[in-house]
Amino acid sequence: MSALDQIRQELLEASYLKSAEAVLHWDQETYMPEGSGAARADQIAFLSGLIHKKATGDKLRDALDELIDLKSGELRTITLNEKETRLVKEAWKDFRKEASLPTEFVSELAKHASASQQAWVQARKENSFETFQPFLEKMVDMQKEKAGYLSLGGSAYDTLMDLFEPGMTTEQADGLFKKLRQRLVPLIQEIQEVKHRVNNSILGKNYDVEKQWGFGVTILKSIGFDFNFGRQDKSTHPFTIGFHPTDVRTTTRLRENDLKTALLATLHEGGHALYNMGLPAEEFGSPLGEYISLGVHESQSRMWENQVGLSRPFWKFAYPKLQAVFPEQLKGVEMEQFHAAMNKVRPSMIRVEADEATYNLHIMLRFEIEQLLINEDFPVAELPAIWNEKMEEYIGIRPKTDAEGVLQDVHWSFGAFGYFPTYTLGNLYSIQFYNQANRDIPGLEDQYAHGKFSALLEWLRTNIHSKGRSVTASELIKNVTGEELSAEPFLDYLEEKYRKIYGLG
Amino acid sequence: MSALDQIRQELLEASYLKSAEAVLHWDQETYMPEGSGAARADQIAFLSGLIHKKATGDKLRDALDELIDLKSGELRTITLNEKETRLVKEAWKDFRKEASLPTEFVSELAKHASASQQAWVQARKENSFETFQPFLEKMVDMQKEKAGYLSLGGSAYDTLMDLFEPGMTTEQADGLFKKLRQRLVPLIQEIQEVKHRVNNSILGKNYDVEKQWGFGVTILKSIGFDFNFGRQDKSTHPFTIGFHPTDVRTTTRLRENDLKTALLATLHEGGHALYNMGLPAEEFGSPLGEYISLGVHESQSRMWENQVGLSRPFWKFAYPKLQAVFPEQLKGVEMEQFHAAMNKVRPSMIRVEADEATYNLHIMLRFEIEQLLINEDFPVAELPAIWNEKMEEYIGIRPKTDAEGVLQDVHWSFGAFGYFPTYTLGNLYSIQFYNQANRDIPGLEDQYAHGKFSALLEWLRTNIHSKGRSVTASELIKNVTGEELSAEPFLDYLEEKYRKIYGLG
Repeated sequence: MSALDQIRQELLEASYLKSAEAVLHWDQETYMPEGSGAARADQIAFLSGLIHKKATGDKLRDALDELIDLKSGELRTITLNEKETRLVKEAWKDFRKEASLPTEFVSELAKHASASQQAWVQARKENSFETFQPFLEKMVDMQKEKAGYLSLGGSAYDTLMDLFEPGMTTEQADGLFKKLRQRLVPLIQEIQEVKHRVNNSILGKNYDVEKQWGFGVTILKSIGFDFNFGRQDKSTHPFTIGFHPTDVRTTTRLRENDLKTALLATLHEGGHALYNMGLPAEEFGSPLGEYISLGVHESQSRMWENQVGLSRPFWKFAYPKLQAVFPEQLKGVEMEQFHAAMNKVRPSMIRVEADEATYNLHIMLRFEIEQLLINEDFPVAELPAIWNEKMEEYIGIRPKTDAEGVLQDVHWSFGAFGYFPTYTLGNLYSIQFYNQANRDIPGLEDQYAHGKFSALLEWLRTNIHSKGRSVTASELIKNVTGEELSAEPFLDYLEEKYRKIYGLG
Repeated sequence: MSALDQIRQELLEASYLKSAEAVLHWDQETYMPEGSGAARADQIAFLSGLIHKKATGDKLRDALDELIDLKSGELRTITLNEKETRLVKEAWKDFRKEASLPTEFVSELAKHASASQQAWVQARKENSFETFQPFLEKMVDMQKEKAGYLSLGGSAYDTLMDLFEPGMTTEQADGLFKKLRQRLVPLIQEIQEVKHRVNNSILGKNYDVEKQWGFGVTILKSIGFDFNFGRQDKSTHPFTIGFHPTDVRTTTRLRENDLKTALLATLHEGGHALYNMGLPAEEFGSPLGEYISLGVHESQSRMWENQVGLSRPFWKFAYPKLQAVFPEQLKGVEMEQFHAAMNKVRPSMIRVEADEATYNLHIMLRFEIEQLLINEDFPVAELPAIWNEKMEEYIGIRPKTDAEGVLQDVHWSFGAFGYFPTYTLGNLYSIQFYNQANRDIPGLEDQYAHGKFSALLEWLRTNIHSKGRSVTASELIKNVTGEELSAEPFLDYLEEKYRKIYGLG
């Protein structure tokens, strides 16, 4: 077997294990009985260890070593074509990351992540940051240690963010957030002064959850989610997980007095799922078959949720259908009124419930705090105070409890530092990609009004999904749009959309 | 690490992989999208290979070799206590079986089993034995080859049956079947002469499947199935699968015009599940934490299905509840009449639909044919003819098509020869265990009439479930009942029950 084939084989086998582990996770969040958690945790821990061993094993190392200098990442051969070169380089990057971490550290981190996540659940329930604090302190220390092992020279936070958004630097992200802040804060203030112009109380009526589910499934099918290769289930927190491009699972969450959450979750996760389904199946197991970055993944979910699902043309198609499902609740409510209600801007405590306009300020706050924790030795004990301060400064409201403040997100509990910014990057990618699709596809939005979404999906498949990891995120956006990632297109989109909805000049 | 600890560790790790593989199988049969089959097959094939490697690996071999002669199975040490001795001996047996098979053969067999099962599905659909014949011929040859690798001196069929029912010989099974036949055939004939005395048309009315489901769940809870550690779902063929004693999944099958099938499947699979839930969790991963044999497993499903679920006292409790669920359909139907309908004896083509009395004749036919195929070079091409002949001889009816004859069961297609007899062994174990429970627990059946099943479950847990594989099947029945396995208790039970139902002398 050639070194290249050996690399492919080892990575394919690792992918089988990752798929199996993913099925265990999916089952845990959807159907697993409550009392089975301890046994499942053991199974998952064992598989994780096996995956780490496989991803750092001698067979892979030796095969890589034949083709690439393991220290510098310089190719040792000129016989590979462009695609093969990319495969080997990406495989080396992954190998380097995995192999930099001592096996004992990986295992200790996994154990602490599990304990810490449980502590977080408890702390949030009891609204007690103090319960969580020692776990978070240890986690921050371990993340710094992790960054030390992985470092390629930048700051610790750069190193961690690179795990989720390869190639992104703190400096670049910081520049984007500064621009967002400059225009978002005044825009939101302006909207707040006329907030009475949009009333969304209609969304809080009583909506049968089974009917909500049925409507969501109809919408999923409309946008091209193929139930032959995927399914939707229910879970406490909506998520998407792919075992293979031919087997992608999403979940949603249904509430009787909330028409908006389930529908947007369905569209959001549906967008993630379409990306997973569109990854090149023939590259399954190799890095070229994987998604580019969390930011690019988020751009896909956000596009279907926001640019499509919160647009006027979409509701021209979908609103009559929704009215047919809930004739009483939506009686006499015009489409424009409904569309405005779905788009109401309202500063709120909880990130996952935030509207498009305020959402990125929630992220900015986390991005700033993460840098303080990871790069500046900021004391964990002072997190609630700085959280509340920044909430007041950026969003104009102050959490009354830690449960609705610093304890609201699960991410830090399991060690995901550098993850949050990818949500905002996703929003920015999203609008730049979308603008390009709009330029490339004549009459794109008219098509939505007739329930036709296939041109957009086809465009995404061709330009983004099918690329896998054969390009980096910055190459992708350059190739597809001719532009660098920037904040302006997103800000322009928001200004235009919300000035219209709120009747601002 | 001591050799014993090393053995435990290796087997535990193999068990984690087996659990993961089992979750993949469960998902495949319950929720997996239709188009995901190919990807799932690859994942399962890889895990199977890994499990085989683990179960035959050097670490396990070397640790076993320290404690036991790998050829003879003689212990090399006198330092082990009784339980440890059993563990090592059982681990050695498993190791010997796995390691006797060349890895290439295992992989080829797995591939052929998959292809052959697909061919069987197609052949049954098209009612064409010829389509299946070459696959079955190859499978029979491979099973003979397998028996050759595994042989400990008995016949090839002995070797194969031992995989499913360790310790059972063809001779012993043959003796049991002969006795069954002697009394079953005349009993069934006698019943056939008064068959009009029981009318079961009531069971074919229209019964809403969701209500059937709800009733089944109520019954499962009543008999002690703990939904905190298990769940029930729907599948084409009902099955039970355990990932751990704290996570056991069953399925049932619902038909609108059939009240009996789903309910009995629920009880049957529920009985399997209670066994899995009662295995000693502290021994998870070691042979001592596993079930003894398929026959013993089947005894647990049959006991809850037949001795409990088809009994008068059970329906004293359950029938009023069922009537409350289906008041119109069961209006004016007395409990005795309903009980008789559920127990109607009727010679039929399909094993899985057979009643308690005719069931074992279906098995006898398969048992005889399997011996011909495996031990006597009987030509596969003549299978349909001999099948139909024996059906007429034993059961008194002749299949009109191969689909309702020789093609009805999946087992042979994936190579399970020697499996069928365990169904009948299960019926025999079942009644002997049950008779003992009845002797040990005063007023046992009166308790059912009040919906109390915990005394029986407790008895089963103490005497059977918690033993895991620390005893053999023949030791178990001797320990629990003081008797050897025999056909008479089962025949006596049948005679008594059905003479009463059919009003025979």
